[in-house]
This record gives sequence, C-alpha cells and structure tokens, in this order.
Amino acid sequence: MINISPAIEIAGTVAFAVSGSYSAMLKRLDVFGVLIMGFVTAIGGGTIRDVMIGDTPVAWMRDYRLLLIILGTVIATILFKKYIKTLKTTLFLFDALGLGLFTIIGTQKGIAAGLNPGVCVALGTITGCFGGVIRDILLNDIPLIFRKEIYATACIVGGTLYVLLVDHMDPQLVKIIAVVMVCAIRIVAVRYKLSLPKFYA
Amino acid sequence: MINISPAIEIAGTVAFAVSGSYSAMLKRLDVFGVLIMGFVTAIGGGTIRDVMIGDTPVAWMRDYRLLLIILGTVIATILFKKYIKTLKTTLFLFDALGLGLFTIIGTQKGIAAGLNPGVCVALGTITGCFGGVIRDILLNDIPLIFRKEIYATACIVGGTLYVLLVDHMDPQLVKIIAVVMVCAIRIVAVRYKLSLPKFYA
Amino acid sequence: MINISPAIEIAGTVAFAVSGSYSAMLKRLDVFGVLIMGFVTAIGGGTIRDVMIGDTPVAWMRDYRLLLIILGTVIATILFKKYIKTLKTTLFLFDALGLGLFTIIGTQKGIAAGLNPGVCVALGTITGCFGGVIRDILLNDIPLIFRKEIYATACIVGGTLYVLLVDHMDPQLVKIIAVVMVCAIRIVAVRYKLSLPKFYA
Repeated sequence: MINISPAIEIAGTVAFAVSGSYSAMLKRLDVFGVLIMGFVTAIGGGTIRDVMIGDTPVAWMRDYRLLLIILGTVIATILFKKYIKTLKTTLFLFDALGLGLFTIIGTQKGIAAGLNPGVCVALGTITGCFGGVIRDILLNDIPLIFRKEIYATACIVGGTLYVLLVDHMDPQLVKIIAVVMVCAIRIVAVRYKLSLPKFYA
Repeated sequence: MINISPAIEIAGTVAFAVSGSYSAMLKRLDVFGVLIMGFVTAIGGGTIRDVMIGDTPVAWMRDYRLLLIILGTVIATILFKKYIKTLKTTLFLFDALGLGLFTIIGTQKGIAAGLNPGVCVALGTITGCFGGVIRDILLNDIPLIFRKEIYATACIVGGTLYVLLVDHMDPQLVKIIAVVMVCAIRIVAVRYKLSLPKFYA
Repeated sequence: MINISPAIEIAGTVAFAVSGSYSAMLKRLDVFGVLIMGFVTAIGGGTIRDVMIGDTPVAWMRDYRLLLIILGTVIATILFKKYIKTLKTTLFLFDALGLGLFTIIGTQKGIAAGLNPGVCVALGTITGCFGGVIRDILLNDIPLIFRKEIYATACIVGGTLYVLLVDHMDPQLVKIIAVVMVCAIRIVAVRYKLSLPKFYA
C-alpha cells in the first residue's frame, strides 16, 4: 500500500497556512503579520503537542522544508487573494483533510510515547485544533472552534476510532478510515449546518 | 499524619473545572467549548509549570483519572447549572483550597528540581493562577487575576511561607500551614472586598 | 575584545520590563498585574524559545538575578511613572538594543542546537518579539507587532546577517554588526514612520 501521508500532510499544512494568512488579511494586518499568522496556524497545534510530550526541538525546527512550504503558501495567498473566495470549497476540503491527518499524527505520537488511549485522543485533538485556536487568540477573537459547526468533536471521534482499531487491523488502513471519518463529519456538519447544543448559565 | 493532599487536589481540580465550564456557559459556548474550558482551566497551570521545568509528558498525560474527573465535573456543571449560583460560597471555598494546594505543589516541584527559592515561589504562583489566565484569554477577557481581589498575592505569600519553613518543621505541617494561609488571604480579601492599589500611567 | 553582551542583555530586560509594566498601568491593572506584565514581557520570548528547543528549566529559572532586576525595574517604573513619558526616546533605544540582542541570543541558541539556519532566524525572531506578543494578548489587544512600524522584520534581517557571517568573521564582531543592524532598522523605521504594505482580503 502506498503511504499517502506526506502528500496529505503537505496539503493540510498548506490549507492551514492559507486559513491563517487569509484571516490576517481580513483583519488588515501588514505583510509580516500575514506571514506570521500563516505560520502559527500551520505549526501551532504540532508545536503545543511536541512541547507537552517533551519531543523537542519541536517538529517544524527539524524539517525546514515546512517553513519553505508555508512561506510559499502565504505568498501565493497574497498574490491570488481574489481567487481565494472562489476556491472556498476546495479550501474547506483541504482543511478537513489536514484536520484529519494532524489529528491522527497526534494520536499516533501519543501511542508511541506510551500514553493512555484517552490521553492520545486528547493529544490528537489538540494537534488538529490548536493552530486555529492560536490564530484566533492572536487576532483577538473568541476561538471559532467554540462557536461554529462541529469541529473538535470530529477529531475526538476520529482519534477514538483510531485508538480502538489500530491493534486489530492494518495500521495504514486504520489511518485512512480515521482520517476519512474526521473529514466526513466535518463535511456533513458544514453541509447541513449542524452544531452542538449550547447551554446558557 | 494522614496525607490529605490527594483529596484536596481532586477538590481543587473539580473547583477549577467548574469555574472554567461555568464561565464558558456564561459566554454561550457550545457543549464542546464548555468541556474544553473546564479542562484547560483545571490543567492549564500545571501544564505550563511542567513544560517550563521540562517535566514531560506533562502531569495530566500521566494520570488519565484527572481527565475522567474533569469530564464528570463538566457534565455535572451542565446538568446542575441552576444550583451552581446557590453554591457560590462552596465553590469559592473549593477554589481557594485548590489555589492553595496547586501553589504548594508547584513550589515543591521547583524545590525538587533544585531551583532558587524565589523561582520556586514564582513557579507555585504560575501553577495556581495560570489555569484561570488561560481561561480568560480563550474567552477574550483581560485576565480576572489582574482586575479583582487579591489573588496571585495569596499564592506568593503562601509559597514564600512554604519555602521559608520547609527546612525547619515537619514538611506535612508546613504544607498545611501554607495552604491555609493562601485560603485565609483569599477569604479575607473577598469577604472585605480588599484589592491592591492601582496606578494610572 | 570586551564582551558587551551582559550589560546590553540587562538593558534589554529592563527596557522590556518597563514596556510591559507601563502598558499595564495604561490599562489600569492593579500593582500585581503591573508586576506580572513587566515580568512576562521581559522573559516571555526567551521562555517560548527554551520550551520549543527543550532547554529546560527555562532561562529565567536558572538565574534568579533576572527576577530581581525585573522586580526592581517594575518598582522604579511605578515610582517614576511621571518621568517615563519624558524618557520615551531613551526607552525606545533600550528597547531596540534589547530586541537586537535577544534576537541574536536566540539565533545563537539555535545554531548551538544544530538547527537549520532558517529555523535559527525564526527562533531569534521569536525570542525578540514574543515577550511583546504575550503582553498584548494578556492585555486583550491585537499584538502591536502586527500593526506598527517594522519590528519583526528587523529581527529577521539581523538574524539572517548573523547566520550568513558567523562562519566567516570574528563571532563577537558579527554579533555587534547584527545587533546594530536590528537597532538601525528600528530607528530608521520609527524615525521615518515606515511600515510594511498591507493587503486587504
């Protein structure tokens, strides 16, 4: 079986970098702000993950090609900003794929570190979601993750599936199933505008 | 002497989880947002502490029962939200106890790592206070710690007391004295609405 | 050649502590809030740097004199707040010097850790800028770094210069050149109100 991970990981990094830099342009940040926002959105989740499990230097420091990919993505986002809107669906699918893969990478890293399965799922969810959380904190918003369609829930479901199946099936297959599950939940949630119930105190 | 720490640590975790999830409901976050906010408020201070001293994987990753306690607390907070208001005094006492114990745990960890006493007090204060700081940042407020009755000051006093006495008295007794001191300062400050002076630039 | 680093590092720490505590007074925080803000602004960048490369306990925990310097600086800022405004130019020069030296210290640490040159420059930029980013997040603003005159760009240029020259010239001399470059860019940018172009999405 061909390992499809690297290609999707790059696609996910690109999608998150576009998301961060595009949000920065909406807030009228200068060109450096746009670059930083693309960068932290793409690497924030993985950085928090590595710092918490003690796997340092963190991932982006060990593979400088990630920096180049993010730099190229941000430049492209600035140049082609007019087309970004028309690509909304493509972008959303990239983001869903990236979310799925980042979640599973985080979950795998937890298993490799010998952590409890529930902790692994939490770690995967943090890896998938916290780039966007940092983006929203830096832009002074309440993180979107708390206010929009099902997002982190998709990560929790995908990560749980991975943890449950990985000892009983081919790992590559389990990975694909889990990533597809995260994507499917996101697509259905956004398509039908599903959101979790709210409770008012 | 019976070691009362585990029971109080759980009480403190519960109090902080209630505080985070209740604040999230006041801001009308969805059910997942409420869960995350309970979680980060309860484990945020200890996570920053462990990351800064390099004790990784951080504490909540090594004891999955903490996750279960927080999960149960958040569910209970959602179910019994109407009663939370009437429990305000109980909650406040839990929070004060948790603050005291978390401060002393952080200070102890610093001593065990061979750090300078002043650094240990800073570490204890961070452990006690920064869960709430992260809660307020995520909810897009200026952290309450900066605007309300004496809070971090109680941690600094309790931690300093612990550092000064621990070599000269029974460690368990010193722990109790320091925790009681933190609680007492908090109770007196809130009861008499004491706050620190402000300076306007 | 005399090593001028320690003196400038202290000057930079002082300048950042003044900047943080003065911003806190403008937001009417209480005396403890002013202290914390001085503290995190001065040590924030270095803490994030050390946590990401795994050099723990982080720097301020290993040299308690930094805490004393910051404490003294915050007290002086409170006492002499009336004079701070008249010292604006002095403060700005201190800040520029601190920015330059912190950037180069971060870049050097990256090289010592065997990281890729581009990653070292990113690490230096984070060391120089992120104390201020944390200050602005805690005070609930969009970080100034994203909205004002060329700031992080100066760090990127200075760090790049250091990385390019350090193998070909006397390291002490390269350090001075790089620090002067960061300062010069800042001074020119502020003097002529230069800012980077903005892109609106």
